[in-house]
Amino acid sequence: MPPAAHVSQSTPFRWSGIDELVYKDGGTTFRDVTRRVLFGEEHGNGVEVRYFEIAAGGHTTLERHGHTHSVMPLTGAGRCLVGETVYRLALHDLVYVPEWTWHQFRADEDAPLGILCVVRVDRDRPTLPTQSDLAALRRSPAAEFIRV
Amino acid sequence: MPPAAHVSQSTPFRWSGIDELVYKDGGTTFRDVTRRVLFGEEHGNGVEVRYFEIAAGGHTTLERHGHTHSVMPLTGAGRCLVGETVYRLALHDLVYVPEWTWHQFRADEDAPLGILCVVRVDRDRPTLPTQSDLAALRRSPAAEFIRV
Repeated sequence: MPPAAHVSQSTPFRWSGIDELVYKDGGTTFRDVTRRVLFGEEHGNGVEVRYFEIAAGGHTTLERHGHTHSVMPLTGAGRCLVGETVYRLALHDLVYVPEWTWHQFRADEDAPLGILCVVRVDRDRPTLPTQSDLAALRRSPAAEFIRV
Repeated sequence: MPPAAHVSQSTPFRWSGIDELVYKDGGTTFRDVTRRVLFGEEHGNGVEVRYFEIAAGGHTTLERHGHTHSVMPLTGAGRCLVGETVYRLALHDLVYVPEWTWHQFRADEDAPLGILCVVRVDRDRPTLPTQSDLAALRRSPAAEFIRV
């Protein structure tokens, strides 16, 4: 079946026929994150547009990889790490994660954070920080921000 | 200079350092539309993410092309045509325009419509309806919606 021309929402940020997916299989590198694929390979432009929702107090995995991320916060409140810098996010700000750059998104303690994230369909798998990487991050301005 | 990791907004939907561009050069096929490229080729995933803002009462060009569109309304109110069907848009709905499918976006008469639109960097140019195409559209459910 070809993709639908129009997908509406049952409630805000819950799209008809688009399932909630696990963020990652198992592990303890993240906390309270869900994933939905809004547009995928079948939409024909070589990327996936995903919606991640991080519950209040939650965070994505601290990781890096060879592909890039183009991100826009759509709802809620939070911050992100890109490289060694922590950014406070306003809705509809733009975040770019270059190749092989450490990054992590965190919701505020009292609000969720929902973000759009564009990636290539064909991409490499994320890698986690080694103990040596973590030691370096803990000597950087990112030290207080990161959760592992 | 590599792209910025974080781009904030001066006011909602006006991003620092991202210029307002003309929607299209000249012509009378559209009305009151601006364009901003939020993420482009330099962001490395093969697509452009554009923000189009259609002023109240305005509309984009009725056109079709070989590349696809993945669209999300971010602000305001309006409708769109995909093929021969007109859809009322709620914020954060998903719109997919397949290859060679007529499409047009219109803001309501009393509100602007701001949309995100993802396209491949490498894409063909849009084509306009011929008189024969228009005659067919005017016999379809799209008849009352289209503006040319």
